[in-house]
Amino acid sequence: MKKPTILITNDDGVNAPGIRTLIGIMRKLGDVVVVAPDSPQSAQSHAITVSEPLRLKLIKDEDGYREFSCNGTPVDCVKLGTKIVLRKNPDLVVSGINHGSNASINVVYSGTMAAVIEASIDKIPAIGFSLNDYSHHAKFHHAEIFIKEIAQGVLLRGLPESVCLNVNIPKISNEEIKGIRVCRQAKGSWVEEFDERVDPRGRNYYWITGVFSNPDHQKGTDIHAMENNYIAVVPMSFDLTAHNAISYINKFDFVTETKTGFLIQNQKN
Amino acid sequence: MKKPTILITNDDGVNAPGIRTLIGIMRKLGDVVVVAPDSPQSAQSHAITVSEPLRLKLIKDEDGYREFSCNGTPVDCVKLGTKIVLRKNPDLVVSGINHGSNASINVVYSGTMAAVIEASIDKIPAIGFSLNDYSHHAKFHHAEIFIKEIAQGVLLRGLPESVCLNVNIPKISNEEIKGIRVCRQAKGSWVEEFDERVDPRGRNYYWITGVFSNPDHQKGTDIHAMENNYIAVVPMSFDLTAHNAISYINKFDFVTETKTGFLIQNQKN
Repeated sequence: MKKPTILITNDDGVNAPGIRTLIGIMRKLGDVVVVAPDSPQSAQSHAITVSEPLRLKLIKDEDGYREFSCNGTPVDCVKLGTKIVLRKNPDLVVSGINHGSNASINVVYSGTMAAVIEASIDKIPAIGFSLNDYSHHAKFHHAEIFIKEIAQGVLLRGLPESVCLNVNIPKISNEEIKGIRVCRQAKGSWVEEFDERVDPRGRNYYWITGVFSNPDHQKGTDIHAMENNYIAVVPMSFDLTAHNAISYINKFDFVTETKTGFLIQNQKN
Repeated sequence: MKKPTILITNDDGVNAPGIRTLIGIMRKLGDVVVVAPDSPQSAQSHAITVSEPLRLKLIKDEDGYREFSCNGTPVDCVKLGTKIVLRKNPDLVVSGINHGSNASINVVYSGTMAAVIEASIDKIPAIGFSLNDYSHHAKFHHAEIFIKEIAQGVLLRGLPESVCLNVNIPKISNEEIKGIRVCRQAKGSWVEEFDERVDPRGRNYYWITGVFSNPDHQKGTDIHAMENNYIAVVPMSFDLTAHNAISYINKFDFVTETKTGFLIQNQKN
């Protein structure tokens, strides 16, 4: 079997321990190309760089392994990795291992997961890995065997079109990881509490802070799985349509009078 | 009836003609607070500012109308608008009018729509408005009556929890707008073609360019509605779970050998 080509990125930057661990795992599975941000890009979500030129810096070039840093966002890294470095779609894109959970609503803010979604828009099977531990000194070794297993599964079976995977791994504890659960995104959110300060010139400024709040403790959610020491795998889509709300919104029966005086009723699809 | 409080933001910046038009419409419907970026923030998606302090600048303070600029992203503007300026949830958040379409996959990159999604995470009814015309000199007057109609509908009826609206308006043409269609997001994407250049020091750099490609011309999509001169209203959700893929991924039957030598099979929810 031909060795698969695997593109790796993250949002914590090319030197973060999480991506170094992920590179080590993926080099056992295929030829690896890394294109990762040259500085931390957390909370950059799906931002792309349109007002500045992008640059790539070759860091390593070995047999079956190339590594680049990039001055852009994680999504820029995927675009440059496929269109400029590889000039083709890889067999797999992996992102992470993020230092911090991307379960529940965190996925919306995450640069790690935006890179994964970007790959799936381009029809590339893609997986994001995150560890529920923000520390730079987080331990990843308990996760390695599971990451390899999930990546091998996706390389073997592929993923449905427009679907990517969001994998969240519990922080290491005295208890061993119990296994893998396929889940849905829990309905949690961040409760913001801005830190208001006054600068030496008497002007207010604000730092975003906040606490994560999750009222959704149902079994079947990513948060519930992690709380019970399982690895949470959420299949994700970039189709944001709330399909089951279409009929509700159609009941609005928008009626609009145009300038010519006719009444126009909205068209039901 | 008590006048509703309406929070307005955008991603083109507080002085863009699109938001000025939207402010004019919303002031007819309620008390208005504007918190919008002090500079263009297109393609910022759901990015938030965590490494820099945020500042608000009061621009206007009239009866029933306050306007602030902010140095952050559109999502920062919604957070500051609700938590610092209003210190409560408004009755409605509107974003735009964006200079350029946010139909189909554009919604994933859009700062305008990220602001709307952020509001809906906070359980505030929210609508994003975008015009399919990138020009700074775009004409908005054909859209005004429809924008008012849709905002009034949402103020009257509310929206289902976790659902917000993405409204895309065709560019003005000789033909009159035919009406409003409730749609799903079309399966289009951007085909990137980086503009590669060499700087005076001999180093490559890259500008993101690209063409939007949409193979999905079905009736019922936002793109089809706009092509036929209808206003497209897509109800949207921040639950990215691909619910119908959960059973497929469960078939992977991940089996992982842990260090203690036990075989662990993934748990079906």
